[in-house]
Amino acid sequence: MTRKYSVILGNLGNTCDRFLSSGYKDVLNKDMMIKQAASIEGVTGIELVGTWDITLQNLEQMQQSLNAVNLQCASIIPDHFGQKKWGSGAFVSTDKAIRDEAVEETKQMIDAVTALDGNLINLWPGQDGYDYPLCTDYIEDRTRLLDTLGECAAYAKIRNVRLALEFKPKEPRNHSYLARTSDTLLIAQILGDNVGVTIDTGHAFMAYENVGESIAMLKMFGDKLFHMHFNDNYTHWDDDMIVGSIHLVEYFEILYWLEKTAYTGWISMDQYPYREDGCGAIRSSVLFLQQLAGILDHVGVAEIDRLIARRDPVATSKFIREQLVAR
Amino acid sequence: MTRKYSVILGNLGNTCDRFLSSGYKDVLNKDMMIKQAASIEGVTGIELVGTWDITLQNLEQMQQSLNAVNLQCASIIPDHFGQKKWGSGAFVSTDKAIRDEAVEETKQMIDAVTALDGNLINLWPGQDGYDYPLCTDYIEDRTRLLDTLGECAAYAKIRNVRLALEFKPKEPRNHSYLARTSDTLLIAQILGDNVGVTIDTGHAFMAYENVGESIAMLKMFGDKLFHMHFNDNYTHWDDDMIVGSIHLVEYFEILYWLEKTAYTGWISMDQYPYREDGCGAIRSSVLFLQQLAGILDHVGVAEIDRLIARRDPVATSKFIREQLVAR
Amino acid sequence: MTRKYSVILGNLGNTCDRFLSSGYKDVLNKDMMIKQAASIEGVTGIELVGTWDITLQNLEQMQQSLNAVNLQCASIIPDHFGQKKWGSGAFVSTDKAIRDEAVEETKQMIDAVTALDGNLINLWPGQDGYDYPLCTDYIEDRTRLLDTLGECAAYAKIRNVRLALEFKPKEPRNHSYLARTSDTLLIAQILGDNVGVTIDTGHAFMAYENVGESIAMLKMFGDKLFHMHFNDNYTHWDDDMIVGSIHLVEYFEILYWLEKTAYTGWISMDQYPYREDGCGAIRSSVLFLQQLAGILDHVGVAEIDRLIARRDPVATSKFIREQLVAR
Amino acid sequence: MTRKYSVILGNLGNTCDRFLSSGYKDVLNKDMMIKQAASIEGVTGIELVGTWDITLQNLEQMQQSLNAVNLQCASIIPDHFGQKKWGSGAFVSTDKAIRDEAVEETKQMIDAVTALDGNLINLWPGQDGYDYPLCTDYIEDRTRLLDTLGECAAYAKIRNVRLALEFKPKEPRNHSYLARTSDTLLIAQILGDNVGVTIDTGHAFMAYENVGESIAMLKMFGDKLFHMHFNDNYTHWDDDMIVGSIHLVEYFEILYWLEKTAYTGWISMDQYPYREDGCGAIRSSVLFLQQLAGILDHVGVAEIDRLIARRDPVATSKFIREQLVAR
Repeated sequence: MTRKYSVILGNLGNTCDRFLSSGYKDVLNKDMMIKQAASIEGVTGIELVGTWDITLQNLEQMQQSLNAVNLQCASIIPDHFGQKKWGSGAFVSTDKAIRDEAVEETKQMIDAVTALDGNLINLWPGQDGYDYPLCTDYIEDRTRLLDTLGECAAYAKIRNVRLALEFKPKEPRNHSYLARTSDTLLIAQILGDNVGVTIDTGHAFMAYENVGESIAMLKMFGDKLFHMHFNDNYTHWDDDMIVGSIHLVEYFEILYWLEKTAYTGWISMDQYPYREDGCGAIRSSVLFLQQLAGILDHVGVAEIDRLIARRDPVATSKFIREQLVAR
Repeated sequence: MTRKYSVILGNLGNTCDRFLSSGYKDVLNKDMMIKQAASIEGVTGIELVGTWDITLQNLEQMQQSLNAVNLQCASIIPDHFGQKKWGSGAFVSTDKAIRDEAVEETKQMIDAVTALDGNLINLWPGQDGYDYPLCTDYIEDRTRLLDTLGECAAYAKIRNVRLALEFKPKEPRNHSYLARTSDTLLIAQILGDNVGVTIDTGHAFMAYENVGESIAMLKMFGDKLFHMHFNDNYTHWDDDMIVGSIHLVEYFEILYWLEKTAYTGWISMDQYPYREDGCGAIRSSVLFLQQLAGILDHVGVAEIDRLIARRDPVATSKFIREQLVAR
Repeated sequence: MTRKYSVILGNLGNTCDRFLSSGYKDVLNKDMMIKQAASIEGVTGIELVGTWDITLQNLEQMQQSLNAVNLQCASIIPDHFGQKKWGSGAFVSTDKAIRDEAVEETKQMIDAVTALDGNLINLWPGQDGYDYPLCTDYIEDRTRLLDTLGECAAYAKIRNVRLALEFKPKEPRNHSYLARTSDTLLIAQILGDNVGVTIDTGHAFMAYENVGESIAMLKMFGDKLFHMHFNDNYTHWDDDMIVGSIHLVEYFEILYWLEKTAYTGWISMDQYPYREDGCGAIRSSVLFLQQLAGILDHVGVAEIDRLIARRDPVATSKFIREQLVAR
Repeated sequence: MTRKYSVILGNLGNTCDRFLSSGYKDVLNKDMMIKQAASIEGVTGIELVGTWDITLQNLEQMQQSLNAVNLQCASIIPDHFGQKKWGSGAFVSTDKAIRDEAVEETKQMIDAVTALDGNLINLWPGQDGYDYPLCTDYIEDRTRLLDTLGECAAYAKIRNVRLALEFKPKEPRNHSYLARTSDTLLIAQILGDNVGVTIDTGHAFMAYENVGESIAMLKMFGDKLFHMHFNDNYTHWDDDMIVGSIHLVEYFEILYWLEKTAYTGWISMDQYPYREDGCGAIRSSVLFLQQLAGILDHVGVAEIDRLIARRDPVATSKFIREQLVAR
């Protein structure tokens, strides 16, 4: 297996939060950011966000920029979260016109990704959820979600594009509809074979998932892991930190399960380096994962199989000390 | 709709924890506990735990005790958690003999519940999970889970008994296989129409679920809500407190969604009154829920429908102040 | 005791988050917002944020606007979080010039609040913290924090202004230095008698504090509760919701302890009504607290004293059903 | 600096939880456990729990057992949690007789530790807290806590024994009075110079503390770090796992700050190996910490000083990859 690394373009630029809406850094030139992404050892793909990075208007120019540095379009993430119109929901909006726009934005990005020789849409319906109890008709919303996502899936299917649904327990809504691996899997199963799941490691940590188990579950229930986003956090919020800043063993376990389940998708970085050098932060994550992958390849999957078959935390601790931690 | 209230017998007795294994109270006489349960206004059902309360040996005696106070057997909860042999898993144990015992215990309790004129088994595979990363073959375990639970489901099916699978994110294992509504639903869908889900409100709060949404989801995806356990907590752990000690609006929303989805199962109390009077604590929860149910009936579901259709937290706040909080 | 209610002006306006930096609403006219605040029954005070609402330049105009609607300046919250320069810390910045600016901004706002006939500065050093382990000299930072805050405290002291330090476990930093009641109290004790603590109920819930206990602790250790911000959340994040959307009993307990400890400060609303009507959301919180305060006054503190002296959750549950929940 | 490693004797034996009160293992012979403890490379100290391990009756015998294997008594942990009488509080019990017993148990253990040539009491008032809101007089309780602990401190002082107060946010109570570093520090400051704090790494992780920062704070505010307990967890509960099973960087940072602050106390293991081999699990933690300490010594504190002075997560990530993770 050759592992394919990619990054989300916007991670290299300015980032803001609700207290500092102008952002912590200066706005970077997009072409510069693309060059930075391409300069990271082993990175061959890039993810683009709708509105922010890619529209039907700048398609050709983007293609040239990517070609110039030899980057593939790993996926497009259509914008269903970054404009006022999505504020009360995109795919589940009570306003039919907004739902239609959400579908239309997806279709345009399906066309765009095809034009860029990509075949993956990473859909993150971040505004589709709710904030308060006793304010929402959950059946109505989930029905709309199935309808609108279904329309996107059908459009994608005949264009050989796959939809990877990205879950997150909360933020920007207090509760998201696509909240965890298993509820997203339930929806992907209904929507058909070109619809699967994106695991963002940080979103999963925050949901108290063990990502290794989530990968295994997606394998079992229809080979539904379509995409992976990597970042680290303190497990209580989507801190979007450099991979390996907090966790070690779980990342190694993730790489093992990706190998075991014959995952062929992208290993993509998705961070929010608010105050750090963006390119350096992304590069650090790639290098960390490459280092762990190197250990995995050296030790070999069969050896980990034997370790796991022992089901003994004492044996695993020995392995951690001997193979994962420096001596 | 007539709401049916029940309690778990053991909640009325002694309870312990890992620091005080002898328990915080004295052991109560079981017949006394049954009489206490029957004395709670509106309680007509009781849940019995295998080994602790019910075995094939004391079946007849239990029947007499329940008849004497006019209590129905709401469910039996087979013991898959309270003996050393289950310590490393029951349904997913690596030891075939243990898995067989787990199935056998279930079958015996299916027979027992039938003998007691009940038709519901509440299965809580609390020891089926894992504690450490990089120690477990998740695919092997989940396959075993499907196999052994499948055998139980088949046995139950021909006896017209329903299996309600109870999930919990963790405890006693650091990670449970049946962890949340949606992963349990996935398994129930595979196992057939006599297998569904138990929502324990405290387990769901702890998993950051909005229980109203969970009920709606189970309705949509196969009418899979079979049973409900009630208790309250601070949302970070399974504190098993008196209902209404912390939350208000969410319980009201739960009762609304039970009504909307035409739930006909039990409203059962499941608490751990470590230091309080057990019967008083359980009774308090029943009274709290009955009070909220009274408000719901008085206001009417149609009125809540209209409120929810507004999707306006300000309107909901007005409703809370005017209908739920005393003036 | 007469309770004094106030609101933070900016809560009535537009709010944004990291995904939607332009905000969920249109920008409101500031004079309109002031009129809205004044229109909420029982609200007599307003909190102003430096830079956003108040500067030395618009002081006179603001005074006229407040006078016109008869609102007092409850506090000024100097801006130590909303500009790029504070991004890596204000009071603990490694750059002496930035620390000086943080102190200068505070001094200007001390002058401003005095000019507005107020006497309270609510200091929230939100950017003073850190994001990653193994990146920070905690002793150096805390020493700086004591130095710079000490300079502010001395300046405030001779102007009869009190500094209320507002804690929050995290956001915008992954770890804040002023994180919880007790670590903030430790600093307030050192800085002198005109320095105390602001409890934001949502920040405290998120820190797993029982606010009633926090109020009691501040009373015991120097009468250090200077200010209160009110909002509600799911206890896992600073959701900044309408008061009473999730919790009931804890707010009642808070009002009881404010009364017991003879708190004479403001009861101020601090929310982020991203998608709701701002004024309606703030007003809802005020009305909710006034309703609970009405119950408290009706029942009487002595009655709650007796309830608490019983230390019996069953008795408290009875009280909740009979006095707090509608019947 | 020579690091001193110790273990809590009971960790090597049987452990139970609320569902399996008989425990997951067989009861081990105490002498065997002492020999096992002594057999762990580098372990020279042992902590004994009152009632469970040590009483005034078996003092001489214990002394012989420890002498035989050359183990020092690192501390005694008096039993204020494991008997029914402590169920509603020990040091803050409303019953004066119970409070007196809590003090008496402490005094006896002060005598015992002196007899065993030790000088440290680790006090964990685990039952001193509360479970429900609106049930407790927090001022009364905290006053009692100061009184009773004060009596213990005075008794210890003239015997040259130090009291280390161990905090924990919750369990067995839903809220503990000694909950976090800073509230415990506040109490230690009042009680005098022979009273300090124990940091249990797992309790601190669960409280969302960065232990490095906690150590630094205790240094600054009176050199109050008296003792350290080590274990790992998923940061949401006191899972009491093998050190290094989840976290890496934070343990390294802890060892660095212990060095920086010239900590001379014990590095003691405190785990609950429910299902694993107890001795193997404890030994694994010791070996993990020794390995990290080896890296720290090799790299040198001055080098980490320089790294930290950069305050750059990208530089720290490089350090993690180059010095902490295997290559």
